[in-house]
Order: sequence, then structure tokens, then C-alpha cells
Amino acid sequence: MFKYIIDEDLELRLISMEDSDEFFNLIDSNRTHLREWLPWVDGTKSVEDTKNFIKSSMNQYGANNGFQAGIWYMDKIVGIIGLHQLSWYHKNTSIGYWLAEGFQGKGIMTKACRAVIEYIFITLGLERVEIRCADKNFKSQAIPERLGFTKEGVCRNVENLYGNYVNHIVYSVLREEWV
Amino acid sequence: MFKYIIDEDLELRLISMEDSDEFFNLIDSNRTHLREWLPWVDGTKSVEDTKNFIKSSMNQYGANNGFQAGIWYMDKIVGIIGLHQLSWYHKNTSIGYWLAEGFQGKGIMTKACRAVIEYIFITLGLERVEIRCADKNFKSQAIPERLGFTKEGVCRNVENLYGNYVNHIVYSVLREEWV
Amino acid sequence: MFKYIIDEDLELRLISMEDSDEFFNLIDSNRTHLREWLPWVDGTKSVEDTKNFIKSSMNQYGANNGFQAGIWYMDKIVGIIGLHQLSWYHKNTSIGYWLAEGFQGKGIMTKACRAVIEYIFITLGLERVEIRCADKNFKSQAIPERLGFTKEGVCRNVENLYGNYVNHIVYSVLREEWV
Amino acid sequence: MFKYIIDEDLELRLISMEDSDEFFNLIDSNRTHLREWLPWVDGTKSVEDTKNFIKSSMNQYGANNGFQAGIWYMDKIVGIIGLHQLSWYHKNTSIGYWLAEGFQGKGIMTKACRAVIEYIFITLGLERVEIRCADKNFKSQAIPERLGFTKEGVCRNVENLYGNYVNHIVYSVLREEWV
Amino acid sequence: MFKYIIDEDLELRLISMEDSDEFFNLIDSNRTHLREWLPWVDGTKSVEDTKNFIKSSMNQYGANNGFQAGIWYMDKIVGIIGLHQLSWYHKNTSIGYWLAEGFQGKGIMTKACRAVIEYIFITLGLERVEIRCADKNFKSQAIPERLGFTKEGVCRNVENLYGNYVNHIVYSVLREEWV
Amino acid sequence: MFKYIIDEDLELRLISMEDSDEFFNLIDSNRTHLREWLPWVDGTKSVEDTKNFIKSSMNQYGANNGFQAGIWYMDKIVGIIGLHQLSWYHKNTSIGYWLAEGFQGKGIMTKACRAVIEYIFITLGLERVEIRCADKNFKSQAIPERLGFTKEGVCRNVENLYGNYVNHIVYSVLREEWV
Repeated sequence: MFKYIIDEDLELRLISMEDSDEFFNLIDSNRTHLREWLPWVDGTKSVEDTKNFIKSSMNQYGANNGFQAGIWYMDKIVGIIGLHQLSWYHKNTSIGYWLAEGFQGKGIMTKACRAVIEYIFITLGLERVEIRCADKNFKSQAIPERLGFTKEGVCRNVENLYGNYVNHIVYSVLREEWV
Repeated sequence: MFKYIIDEDLELRLISMEDSDEFFNLIDSNRTHLREWLPWVDGTKSVEDTKNFIKSSMNQYGANNGFQAGIWYMDKIVGIIGLHQLSWYHKNTSIGYWLAEGFQGKGIMTKACRAVIEYIFITLGLERVEIRCADKNFKSQAIPERLGFTKEGVCRNVENLYGNYVNHIVYSVLREEWV
Repeated sequence: MFKYIIDEDLELRLISMEDSDEFFNLIDSNRTHLREWLPWVDGTKSVEDTKNFIKSSMNQYGANNGFQAGIWYMDKIVGIIGLHQLSWYHKNTSIGYWLAEGFQGKGIMTKACRAVIEYIFITLGLERVEIRCADKNFKSQAIPERLGFTKEGVCRNVENLYGNYVNHIVYSVLREEWV
Repeated sequence: MFKYIIDEDLELRLISMEDSDEFFNLIDSNRTHLREWLPWVDGTKSVEDTKNFIKSSMNQYGANNGFQAGIWYMDKIVGIIGLHQLSWYHKNTSIGYWLAEGFQGKGIMTKACRAVIEYIFITLGLERVEIRCADKNFKSQAIPERLGFTKEGVCRNVENLYGNYVNHIVYSVLREEWV
Repeated sequence: MFKYIIDEDLELRLISMEDSDEFFNLIDSNRTHLREWLPWVDGTKSVEDTKNFIKSSMNQYGANNGFQAGIWYMDKIVGIIGLHQLSWYHKNTSIGYWLAEGFQGKGIMTKACRAVIEYIFITLGLERVEIRCADKNFKSQAIPERLGFTKEGVCRNVENLYGNYVNHIVYSVLREEWV
Repeated sequence: MFKYIIDEDLELRLISMEDSDEFFNLIDSNRTHLREWLPWVDGTKSVEDTKNFIKSSMNQYGANNGFQAGIWYMDKIVGIIGLHQLSWYHKNTSIGYWLAEGFQGKGIMTKACRAVIEYIFITLGLERVEIRCADKNFKSQAIPERLGFTKEGVCRNVENLYGNYVNHIVYSVLREEWV
């Protein structure tokens, strides 16, 4: 029910149980595309797994610990954007996201990220936002680069992607740079 | 961040920690008005009490057990609407609401309720929605009556309102009547 | 071990693990009779399900949230009576009950209810007791009517009984009427 | 509400919130007598402490882990009897009890213990019941001795009684000896 | 990683997940020997069961409730020693232990117990340590006897060993006797 | 009781309740020194705060989520070393540490880190270890540099140090580089 409207085609909807079928189908029809960079794809075998993800995302929101939102484009779910590791004390967080095949290159994720960052700095009042991308995931890197993030370094072998250890480029933007 | 837009002046926002000050101030400046029918007003003494209410409302959402939303009119919070006693098994729920003084008589609550009922029947797929009003709270009763609810009966002495036991009129609307 | 003696033939026993076999057998041999009005009968497939019910009933008691008691007639368990939705703040509760086939018409449930209501008003000091009966369950309605309850209204489609939505007649008696 | 009737003067009542005042008053008017052998007396300063004890006793029952019952003599509470350390796997438990001043020497505790042991062997089906008494608490020792328990040994310095370490005599009776 | 070194051949290591395979293999190759006196052997069917034991032992340590340690002899795990029923209030605890076949008669367990008792009296500051042995388990009894414990009595039928009820000899040593 | 011996003067001891006084005194007599780089110093006002830290560290160990160990030099506690953010799935973790004034420059922390890294790679089998140091904390940086870590980048404004936001240099070493 609750959404953040970005423009007439694009909105974020707080993830919710009633979207589980549509959300699972999106993953199920994008397996090859998604598993290139996302470690949880093979573990998502049925709509029950998606429901468990939604349940834990609702718990995350319920614990005042950030959110996961569906990205809806022309009234269809096309991806997810959300917060990881929100620290109220150190006033920072990290954004994660993915988009289904065929929806890249339309500026969808750049707009979605911009909206979420606005919310993080203006509404939540945090000091720092991080985005981490695998060092060979050039499409993902294009987002923080387009949004003016600073590349801070490369964390080596930091993610287990189906048995291969992948490097992460760390990008960040500070409140004073954004506002 | 997440809202449901009703019209250009009116929206519902999922209740959230960042609204605690504004929300407490609304209650604090409406004490006489609110305590006439709401049993929790005297127990809301500081913004900490409001934060605890928000925390438990976020937990309610996180447990997939309904929601509480702020009613925002011309970008100011003017009241609350939410679900009580959602039964997924029996497919019914109950709506509760209140509005600050000076905002009644503008159709705000009727529109807010209509939006929530839409959501309950269409998105959640429930079978029955209940509204309960104290039998002397005529302004509150006007809402379900305007929305075509059926008056089902009067539960006597069912609410402890600062030591006085108050009767509730029970109204309901069924899915088949609404859709 | 702990019981409430009503007369020489009839007593209530706080529900307890050691009764699980006898209690499951009672349900198992009354399936057709019980499932006419009780939504949980089909889900009670083995003594394990009955043990889970007893466990949750013991938890209910342990949380000071009411009780479930077996109705024992001539030293055999013949039904259950218990409290739902006990509100210490609003000082009200609701009674639920059922009886095995062949034990109706002997005044057993009327006596059992009277004992429980006595306890609710005198010992617990509550203000209101509710009994809800399906609107076609005339045998169940006879109990509150015989005990002088007031019929307050009919809640429509409020119970999911194996896919059919059933109306509830709401009866209540107030402390001032009883004592 | 729930009781076990021993004879016309004597009954056990499952401990319950509604008895908290009467139960606290009993302790409060027996402090000197009780603190001679009971380590928790000084920590019971107000009826709130008694309510916490009752709450934890109700939890014990709710977890199917034994019970605590008030001993009622001529309709007044005069003591407590209950189970400690119930092991369903090893099928044994231990009984604890105390009586207010002036009620000893009437056979009250012997009858209460006999009822509880009956319940442990017949209803619960356990194999062994233990009673432990401080080695200088001769009144307490009289109970297991009168009931035919076997004295198994003396555990030295096993209880902290306000800073003094007290020895426990261990008594037991086996199922095969009792039934 | 964390160990207590007893001598150049012998050390205790706080039980830890990384030892699960080696620990399960020890049990698995000693089934006949161990099940003579230990009730949990038949329930330890796979390394998963051992992991659950380690998990609950780590929880025990995490709750400041004592520990379980592997006994390592010449760099191989040969048994377990740990605390049961630690009471901070009454300042006592009980030691449990077992050794694989072929490692008895070397003084291993006597040294291990002495180290643990030292820790209990000197570091934890308790008043009493108990060891309980089945009355026919003469090898186990040799440990407390060699360490100067006092035999306090025999608890009859106190342990369910695969359906047979076994007596326990209770031994103890007091702080004042040890230090 | 459980320790890891590094050399005759230096050992790590798994943090434990019995060290709370000695550990609090160490912090209390090093406040000026420690608060330069550690955000929790001002919040540690009494031994109760230290006990809460120890309790949560024991919980961390009990949940198989890494450990915190006291660094003991010549039988006195002089600092802490421990793991943060252990991911069993991604097989990486992060080391944190501090040393009291007057104990720096003796190679203590370099040896302690080396021991912990050994344990992480050899015993736990992880793939990556991270150390993060404030960008002006040159003494801290000397440790990963001396141990051959790679400097991967600088995370800006990532730590709230009493209201100032501090940059972290991220260092790491990989399993393949270490072993």
C-alpha cells in the first residue's frame, strides 16, 4: 500500500507479503541474469523462500533498522533497493540493489538510488552512505559514479559468490557533499 | 518515506520514528479533545511514550499484522488510522482512527477510511472490516455510516475510559458489499 | 490434579498434559459432531496436535491470560470450557465451550458456564463477559439465553468455518447484572 | 479457582494472581518464623515481590514443569507446596514446602505431601520423589520420615541461608515403594 | 583456541565448533564403552547431534553458567569435562566427565578434575563441588575418592539409563577442605 | 581459565566475568589515553558497564560469532583483542584491539594479532581478515603494516568519535597471502 513516487512511471513500494508471487516470478524468470552477481539466487527455490525474505525484510523495518523496497516501473516490479547495516550511532548505512534484465539503461536505478539517498540524508539525518559493487560488475558501478560518489578503495575477496571470492569496490557519499 | 496519496492535500504515511516529535506535539496540543474518547491519552506524557507507540506499531507491521499510518493533510500530521486484530485465518480486521481538533468536517477521515478499506478488500483480500465507535461519539459514528457500513449491535461496557465503562456500536462492511 | 467441583457428577479440570490421550480420543470420536461448528477439528489429526493445544493452553494460563478447562462428567472428559481475549485493562473476557455428542440436554454446559462466570466476576473482578455463538448454532445459543445474557447484535461473516463465513450472535452479561 | 480437596478442612489451590495479597500478608506476618529456614524471605519486601513469585510459578506450570500450590486450611492460606527440578526424562522430581507458624503439628503438611506424591506417582508416572531438609530443621524432617521416605545421605554446605552454608538431608521414596 | 594446560601431554580446551568432527568420531568409535554409563550416546547419531551439543555448551558458557571442555591428551581429544547446575547464589556446582576407552588408568581424569576444582574454588570462589557416579561405575568413583572427596550418600533410581534406573553415589568436597 | 599462550610473558584469555574488576580498573586508569580513539570509553562509568560488555562478549562467543580476549602481559591485563562481524558464509572477519598506555612499543599487539590471525586462517578456515584504523591513529596502523596487510582504501566519516566523524583506513590480508 505504501509507496514513494519518483515519477509517473517509477515508484518504490515498501516490500510486503501481498507481493510475494509477483516478486518470486521476477526472480525465477531472471535466474541467469541475477546469479551473475547475487549470492542468494540459487537458494531462492520457491515462493516460500521469497516469503521468508519478505518476512525478514518486514522485521528489519519493524526493528527500525532500514527497509527493503520493490522498484515498480510501469506498475510492474522490476527490482529491489534497500538498506544494509544501518548504524544509528555512527550515522551511516549502505545501499544494495538489483534490477531485472531488460530494465537497465533506462535510468531507473539512478533515480531510485537518488530518492533513497535523499531520504537517508534529509529524513534520517545520517552522515554517510556507502555503495559496494563487485569490481567486475560495471553496470552496478555506473550508479554511484553517475551520482557523484567517491571511490574509496577495493576490498579483496570479501564476498562468497557460489564459491568464488569477489572483490568489492567501496563508494561513498557524505552528507556535506550531497545536501 | 512511504506514503499512500489520497488526493493532492491528503496522504497516509506509514508511521515512522522520524515523525515522533511532530506526532507527540499533535497529541500534546489536543489533550482535552482526544481524551474524551481515547483511553491512552493520559498515558502519553512525553515523546518517549510516543516513540514506544511507534516502535510497537513498527513491530506490528514487521510481524505482518497490519499497520498504523499518520494522516497528513497539507503536509501536516493531523491524525492516525490503523488496523487492529487482523486475523489472516478468519480474514477480517478492525479499523481505528482519530483526528485532531479543527480537522473534522472536511471529509478527511471518510477519505482515509475509504482508502484503507480498499486496501483491505482488494490488496489483502479480507472478507470483513469492522469499525467500533463509542455510542456517544457521534462524530466517529458518522464515518462508517457515510461509508455504508451496517450497524450490527451495541457491546455494552466494553471499554475502560479512565474508569468509566463505555458501550461500543459495532459496524461492519463485507467484501461482497464493497467491491 | 486441580479441579473445580460443580456437583457430585460434574467438575472442571485445568487442562493438563496427562489428559492428552483421553482428550484426543474424545475429539476423534466426535469429529462429525464437532466440525459442524468448530474450525479447528480437521487440523487435529493426532494426539500430537492435542498436545500442542494443551501446551498453548498451559502457556495461556502461565501468562495470566485466562485458562482452558476440561469438563468432566461422571469422571469422563466430555468437553472444554475456557476464556478468550481476557483484557485486564478493559476488564472483560469471552467464554468459549463445546460438548461431545450425547452429553447435551443434561444442563452440563449451563452449570459449567455459571461456575466460570462466577469466577470471572467474583474472583477476577471483571466487568463484562461475552459469549459468541454462530447464528445457526441454536444449542449453543441456549446457554447464554438460559443464563440471562443480553443479545447485543450479530457480527456477519466473522468466522471462517472450513471456507464458509459464519455470523456470530454476540451475547453479554455485565457484573452489575450478575452479582 | 482450581483446587485439590484433601479433606473438608484442607485443600491445595494452584497458585494464582488473585491470591497475591493474602499470600504476601501470610509471609509478612511470619517473617521471623520463615527466615529460619527459607532463603528468599528477606527478598520478599512487598506484594510486588510476591506477584513476581506467582508469575514465575505460573510460568513453571505453563511450561509443563511442575506447579506451586497454596495450602488452604479452613479457607485460609497457611503455606505452600510445590515441585522443583522436574525431569521428564529421568522421571524424578523434588518436593518443597513450608507452613506458617501455629499450623504445624496438625498433620496438614503430611496430608498435603501425601496428596502431591500420589499425583506424582499415579498421574505423572514418575519413578522417584525427593525431599530435602536442612539437617537442623527437625520439623521439616518429620514429614518424609512419617511418610516412609528413605534417608539417603547428607549434602554438606549446599544451601546459602543468609550467608551461612547449611547441610541438606536427602530423603526419597520410589514408585515401587509407594504404590 | 583457548586452553588450560595441565602438563606437557594434557590440556583442556573450551569446546568449540571447529572440533565437531574430531569429537563426533571419538564418540562414534567408543559407543559400546560410553553407553554403559552415559544416557545420551544412542541419541548422538551424526555430527549434527554433536554440533547441537557444542552449540548448547557454547550457550552455557555464553550465559555465564559454567563450561564444557575437551580433554586433549598428546594433541588428541580423549574425553570431556564440564560443570552442571552452577548456582551463583548457593555457590556450588557439580562436575561431569567421561574418557574414551584406552585412556583410563593414566591419571588423565584425576589431573583434569583437579584443574577444574582449582578453578571452581580459586577463580570462581564457590563453596562446594559435587561429583555423582553411578553406584556400579567403579572407575568413575575412583576419581573423587583419589581427590579426597567425601561420600555423602546414595540417591536411588535417579538416572534413566536406557530404561534402567540407576543409583548415584554423591561425593563432595568443600572449599575449606580443598584450599 | 582458558587461555592462549603466546610466549612466557604474553597470553590471551577468553574474557570472563571473574576479570571484571581488573578489567574495569584498567579502563578507568587509562581514560584519557583510550578515549582518543575509542568511542565507548565515556559510556563505561562503573564496573557494571564492564560486566555488561563481558556479558555481551560471552554471548558473542556462545553464539559462535567470534570472541573477545584479554591481553595479559606478565600476568596483568593490558588490553583487549577480538573479532567483529564474523561472516561464516562469506568467510571473513575483522579484528579490533586496544592497549593500555605504557605497553605500546613492546611488540605485544603485533604478537597478539599474529596469534589471532593464525587462528582465523588455520582453525576457522576463513578467507580474509580485515583491520580498520582511524586515519590519524598511526600507532594502530603500525600493526597491520608490520604484519604485511594490504592497505585497500579509506572510508570517510565512518565512525562517530564523540561527535567527530573519523575516517578509517581499511587493511586486509588474505588466506593465500598468509598461510
